[in-house]
Amino acid sequence: MTTLAFLSANLDFGYLLPAFRAEFPDADLRTMADLGPLDAIDAAVCWCPPAGLMARMPRLSLIQSVGAGIDHLTADPALPDVPVCRIVDTDMASGMAAYVTWAVIHGQRHMGRYLASAAAGRWEEAPIQPPREHRVGIAGLGTLGLVCARALMALGYSVRGWSRSPRELPKGLEGFHGQAQQVEFLSGCDTLVCLLPLTEETTGILNRDLFAQLPRGAHLINVGRGAHLVEADLIPALDAGHLGAATLDAFVQEPLPAGHAFWRDPRILVTPHIATRTQPAVIARQTRLNLERIRAGRAAEVAVDLQRGY
Amino acid sequence: MTTLAFLSANLDFGYLLPAFRAEFPDADLRTMADLGPLDAIDAAVCWCPPAGLMARMPRLSLIQSVGAGIDHLTADPALPDVPVCRIVDTDMASGMAAYVTWAVIHGQRHMGRYLASAAAGRWEEAPIQPPREHRVGIAGLGTLGLVCARALMALGYSVRGWSRSPRELPKGLEGFHGQAQQVEFLSGCDTLVCLLPLTEETTGILNRDLFAQLPRGAHLINVGRGAHLVEADLIPALDAGHLGAATLDAFVQEPLPAGHAFWRDPRILVTPHIATRTQPAVIARQTRLNLERIRAGRAAEVAVDLQRGY
Repeated sequence: MTTLAFLSANLDFGYLLPAFRAEFPDADLRTMADLGPLDAIDAAVCWCPPAGLMARMPRLSLIQSVGAGIDHLTADPALPDVPVCRIVDTDMASGMAAYVTWAVIHGQRHMGRYLASAAAGRWEEAPIQPPREHRVGIAGLGTLGLVCARALMALGYSVRGWSRSPRELPKGLEGFHGQAQQVEFLSGCDTLVCLLPLTEETTGILNRDLFAQLPRGAHLINVGRGAHLVEADLIPALDAGHLGAATLDAFVQEPLPAGHAFWRDPRILVTPHIATRTQPAVIARQTRLNLERIRAGRAAEVAVDLQRGY
Repeated sequence: MTTLAFLSANLDFGYLLPAFRAEFPDADLRTMADLGPLDAIDAAVCWCPPAGLMARMPRLSLIQSVGAGIDHLTADPALPDVPVCRIVDTDMASGMAAYVTWAVIHGQRHMGRYLASAAAGRWEEAPIQPPREHRVGIAGLGTLGLVCARALMALGYSVRGWSRSPRELPKGLEGFHGQAQQVEFLSGCDTLVCLLPLTEETTGILNRDLFAQLPRGAHLINVGRGAHLVEADLIPALDAGHLGAATLDAFVQEPLPAGHAFWRDPRILVTPHIATRTQPAVIARQTRLNLERIRAGRAAEVAVDLQRGY
């Protein structure tokens, strides 16, 4: 019999259990409240699992992240040498693209001003600039980044992308890569969208030096991880005019604490990590498929490259 | 020498003059303040021109609307028998698609709730539904409607369209046409976008009967004309739950009067007719090209079919 453990230091995984029961009808599903004997566990379904816990599971053959990122796993210094998988989900990508597209338009078309005028009962126009004249830069060209780029191009925005290494890109998407082209990329981002994986190289990448390389008044959208942003650098960059606005969906500490300065700054829009979400059935199905591949000796097809970090 | 007259009962066309001077360096440009002899006028550039005025211009060879619609011209009972042209503009289409896409996502993803929570400093999640499960219906499949449909499909929404007569549609866009398929079309519109031309048939088409055919709680987005909507039917449809929300950018009377009930209803978002705008240079260039075609005896290539209304 297969035993799956649901491991998280900060999330209640109860919402996943019905979907996993449907996908693994004969498995033993174990939650943090009652893990039972650790040497019975075959697969760990995780979000920020307690450090060191999986090292004590000798039979473990799959570490499954419930999200697209795996940085919450590699933070564990005692991560066992077991295939790590992440979720790749079209619905998740389109949910992300909807959030990003909304945020790009909301900033570029001054929709916040219209909402304020409407609430005050006032007919007040704001300048209208065609999408073509607005340059959106997407840092990170994985599945999520490419779906966002395609949607923004369909709206007529001038879209550019940046990734660590060169990639084959859809027609119309201007590509930049590596450290060498980072400055050139940033200089043409009226809106910058961060969709990078969180790695050692990208931690703190959204900092004062980077902000200074953007066109003055740029709009920052962070839908990556909270740790991409050096939080202390944000308000000074807005004050200096390097940035005009920021839309943030991820934070170092979540929920963002009640007294945090980001809540009080009208130039910063805080959303509660809702840009996208994967449906439980999708997580359950991909976990089953990953486990089948690994048991068939085909781990390389599904496991993340831990060196690279995604 | 060519003489162009700028005719409008409610707009100041001063903003168009620099672009027309650049495009027609040798022409005489005449505004409402000083039209000069009417029998010298070759072309009229119009938005809601005073009725009967153009009938007194014997040399007129082009009536150019500055927008995509021509309903503001055909309202003139004494409209002379002269080719009528409208503006077809890619930037205008992408501006429209950006507005419509913003409004669709704003409703479907409960962005208004997040804005309110953020303003109050509260971390509050709202339900997340993947775009695929949300059906957007576009009434009117002209240039603007098709650009909106493509952008929404790129985001993963389930998009359907309705037009008066059958059309060849891009892959993935479910098409309906004519009165016979109207009920079936409406029954699958979680969001309904009105981008119809204003004709005798479509005046007042957004009324209580139509609202009752939508799924309960549907979101209405009117970016057509104010007269598409029977204004008195809107708040009762929201009260009855046939509609859940409305986003309106066009009104019978503009600016929407200060005391109008739409301003005060939190379920209705009023924007000041800013969904899109054509750049002056585009209007000037298309006017010149239309005039050249007409003078070369090729009016049929550029003129609107007045019987059909677009």
